[in-house]
Amino acid sequence: VITNDAIVEGVHFLSADPPAEVARKLLRVNLSDLAAKGAEPYGYFLAIAWPRGFGEAERAAFAAGLAEDQAQFGIKLLGGDTVSTPGPLTASVTMIGWAPSGAMVRRDGARPGQVLMVTGTIGDAGLGLKAAQGFLEGEGAEMLAARYRTPEPRLGLHDALRAHASACIDISDGLIADAIHIEEAGKVALQIDLERLPLSPAAQSWLALQPYPSGALVELATSGDDYELLLTADVSAALPLAMAAAAAGVALTPIGRIHEGEGTAILHHGRPVLVQKTGWRH
Amino acid sequence: VITNDAIVEGVHFLSADPPAEVARKLLRVNLSDLAAKGAEPYGYFLAIAWPRGFGEAERAAFAAGLAEDQAQFGIKLLGGDTVSTPGPLTASVTMIGWAPSGAMVRRDGARPGQVLMVTGTIGDAGLGLKAAQGFLEGEGAEMLAARYRTPEPRLGLHDALRAHASACIDISDGLIADAIHIEEAGKVALQIDLERLPLSPAAQSWLALQPYPSGALVELATSGDDYELLLTADVSAALPLAMAAAAAGVALTPIGRIHEGEGTAILHHGRPVLVQKTGWRH
Repeated sequence: VITNDAIVEGVHFLSADPPAEVARKLLRVNLSDLAAKGAEPYGYFLAIAWPRGFGEAERAAFAAGLAEDQAQFGIKLLGGDTVSTPGPLTASVTMIGWAPSGAMVRRDGARPGQVLMVTGTIGDAGLGLKAAQGFLEGEGAEMLAARYRTPEPRLGLHDALRAHASACIDISDGLIADAIHIEEAGKVALQIDLERLPLSPAAQSWLALQPYPSGALVELATSGDDYELLLTADVSAALPLAMAAAAAGVALTPIGRIHEGEGTAILHHGRPVLVQKTGWRH
Repeated sequence: VITNDAIVEGVHFLSADPPAEVARKLLRVNLSDLAAKGAEPYGYFLAIAWPRGFGEAERAAFAAGLAEDQAQFGIKLLGGDTVSTPGPLTASVTMIGWAPSGAMVRRDGARPGQVLMVTGTIGDAGLGLKAAQGFLEGEGAEMLAARYRTPEPRLGLHDALRAHASACIDISDGLIADAIHIEEAGKVALQIDLERLPLSPAAQSWLALQPYPSGALVELATSGDDYELLLTADVSAALPLAMAAAAAGVALTPIGRIHEGEGTAILHHGRPVLVQKTGWRH
């Protein structure tokens, strides 16, 4: 299983983000791609273009971030290319992982009658970007910014995903945008119940202050960078999946259903909610 | 076999270079890496950052260049990432190829007594860069510029390389710089005889006008972007290698020997030549 993701300073991360955290996020967004395939990571190639103003100390911090996550996830730097650029810091990772032959989880297997589930909590990274930009303050702002800067790839679920998930995708563009990818690939209809979205205490506190809960929930479900897994499975598989998630220390929450037809319906307490912008496009 | 190379506008290619040729060169430098390993290409991942001023027509021309060489070399675009950048055009290719298990050619196998050989002709791309920049005119200038813009990966030699080459590298930094890579990896000493360098008619014409032939030959041997193969083999393998090269329509020229010891000696008619800068570093 091979993934390839690129990042550009000022587009995918803030110039003020610490270099070590940029490096870790670059690895983690690729690791998250592997997690969604039920794959286990092996190593990666890094192509990086250093800007002229990015000095020895920043490069060392970037390398230290890579080293930290290489150790944490048991992956190796296999090769790559280092060049200079007159433009912004630009980096591309090609990550290689393994899954048993035929066991890789695809995004096109959702079937009518199945349930839609999501790991962890949704919307923290979107709020965290606001916090990192200084637009959100108070209790929890630091945790939210950390969720934006350092996503947690859900690699611990590979056995359960291979055994039970009919489709899976990692949420990078936003919950609704990525749900639509599952809907379109599977040629099915989806229903997402916004009141079932798993929210962190910090996101719940933020939600309680918003005048329009439906709109605020849509905002959480369309902000990107969650890097949680969105998956579909038979109803009978929900229990073994939940047990595997619990063993891996990750929440797994049913948030909707698969139906015959097409389209993704967004409901709040049973009422359709209008979504104007389904997610974030870099 | 996996290779990864990145290019940046203004660093690795000229802003005035046609987009289709930039795309083809990006594929070809990676294909050349595979050729040096005795590998056959399968497909590639492309991470590309489009500058804001790079419009629809330029992107279409770039894509047409990719399509042309995909067809020519029988490779597929397997995936990748497309992002925008406020900086220069930046692109990274991760190319995947195959070689039979254990048959991949490495760069560390040179042994004392063996011969050093090179494919094609040396120095054309260095002169071609001057031609593309308008610093070199006259007969042959267009051919030289084409050699700079569109290198020819020497993929036709994979069977012979697997069977006979003890070490191989493709020349990207410059003949001498890449020879030093073989020397250092193999823990041997190299001798390169400058008068044996294979030169194109255009390079021979240029050489005839230079006041100091030794220095001019060093210039050709240290300008980069040749993308020819530099390899070592037993003396007894020189004939089968030459026959395989002839069958593939590529010249293969012995240019030196491997000795015990360390260091790379550059000789011109038996006399040592001082080399101040061994090659080009991007």
